[in-house]
Amino acid sequence: MPDVQAVISHLQARVTELEARIAIRDLVSDYCHGFDKRDYARFLAIWWPDCLWDIGPPFGKFEGHEGIHKAIHEVLWPAWSESHHLSTNLVIKFHDAENATSVCDVDCVGTLAGETQCQIVGATYEDVLQARDGQWKIQQRKVQIHYFNPVPGTRLVQPA
Amino acid sequence: MPDVQAVISHLQARVTELEARIAIRDLVSDYCHGFDKRDYARFLAIWWPDCLWDIGPPFGKFEGHEGIHKAIHEVLWPAWSESHHLSTNLVIKFHDAENATSVCDVDCVGTLAGETQCQIVGATYEDVLQARDGQWKIQQRKVQIHYFNPVPGTRLVQPA
Amino acid sequence: MPDVQAVISHLQARVTELEARIAIRDLVSDYCHGFDKRDYARFLAIWWPDCLWDIGPPFGKFEGHEGIHKAIHEVLWPAWSESHHLSTNLVIKFHDAENATSVCDVDCVGTLAGETQCQIVGATYEDVLQARDGQWKIQQRKVQIHYFNPVPGTRLVQPA
Repeated sequence: MPDVQAVISHLQARVTELEARIAIRDLVSDYCHGFDKRDYARFLAIWWPDCLWDIGPPFGKFEGHEGIHKAIHEVLWPAWSESHHLSTNLVIKFHDAENATSVCDVDCVGTLAGETQCQIVGATYEDVLQARDGQWKIQQRKVQIHYFNPVPGTRLVQPA
Repeated sequence: MPDVQAVISHLQARVTELEARIAIRDLVSDYCHGFDKRDYARFLAIWWPDCLWDIGPPFGKFEGHEGIHKAIHEVLWPAWSESHHLSTNLVIKFHDAENATSVCDVDCVGTLAGETQCQIVGATYEDVLQARDGQWKIQQRKVQIHYFNPVPGTRLVQPA
Repeated sequence: MPDVQAVISHLQARVTELEARIAIRDLVSDYCHGFDKRDYARFLAIWWPDCLWDIGPPFGKFEGHEGIHKAIHEVLWPAWSESHHLSTNLVIKFHDAENATSVCDVDCVGTLAGETQCQIVGATYEDVLQARDGQWKIQQRKVQIHYFNPVPGTRLVQPA
């Protein structure tokens, strides 16, 4: 082995990328945990301060931590009495050591405020992710909602 | 590179943690595969003998391999004629090299014994995981069920 | 450390397997993205030319890239006006450095062509995977469909 240092450096870069995948996957999961369990600190921590959260119809576009605060506290949490997101099919592409994009699909089951019937939402999230000082967060999330409709006659009920 | 041995040891620890994440993720998946496909050996293998499975209402709390056996064979499999769990949003935190906690969400579609209409269940699992002699298993799983209700008029049907 | 080269080779093999897990997970995700977003290049790229896609009832068995083309363009895409697959519970086993098998569960929500009511499908995929020249693709996918039925009265609707 002529150059141990080069071999080790290459291994370190590979392990760092594998760890970055975990960090990015955790962001995608924490979006769901933070949103559904109404843990704002957990939800906010996934976003860079200069982020863009482009939800599209019927909710709109939100910029920066101020926009996240508004979306959550003035629009989305008031709109849902409960929500349960399932994230899946996450595929991450690295453009360089600090820049990645990802796509995942999500299914959400919930109940809108003031209603009793269950709603289902299917969507795709396209994310732009950046590592700054070694930490990965979401710089941009573009949501495409495929369906958003009730399941008439179905009511979410928690066991007593 | 002044200390190749220290650099390699550090890399080994990072790779070991990445492999531990796979092992833990497999436990979460095998819970679903073992339960839904009624493979008791696969299901039992995810639990340490001194485990606690705290399902809460309407099913209760079960301790040790004896409790797992009772929960599965006397309570849960008799209760469901079929079930299909989807696990998602898994986030793992390591406290040290042998101790971790994790949280995931699960959605289950199934049919209760003696019924024809489909049931849906949404839950969160909070797990305590331990590595013993290099093997990871679940020491404790606490279930929080968010909803558990029928989808009236919907019947699960297998294609002929 | 008596034999740095052996230690590094072992580490490299472990990292290579971790990377193979990512590659295989991406195949499972790209099946869903390619199928649902009707991106045929993405869908085809997951299959080896000598693949077998055994869907079983009601769709049948398809061999090779020609079979994939027929299944997609003549059978499945014409059958669905929209579909949304969620893959989950992926467990991968390596038999050697170039051969693996995996199992995952999938839930699909969609609408059949010419219908308005939503359909739900639950299935398990058992895959045989091979690495050729360092690239992983699916050599065989066996589908077992657990349920495939409508949710009467529910209609998937995209927000305006």
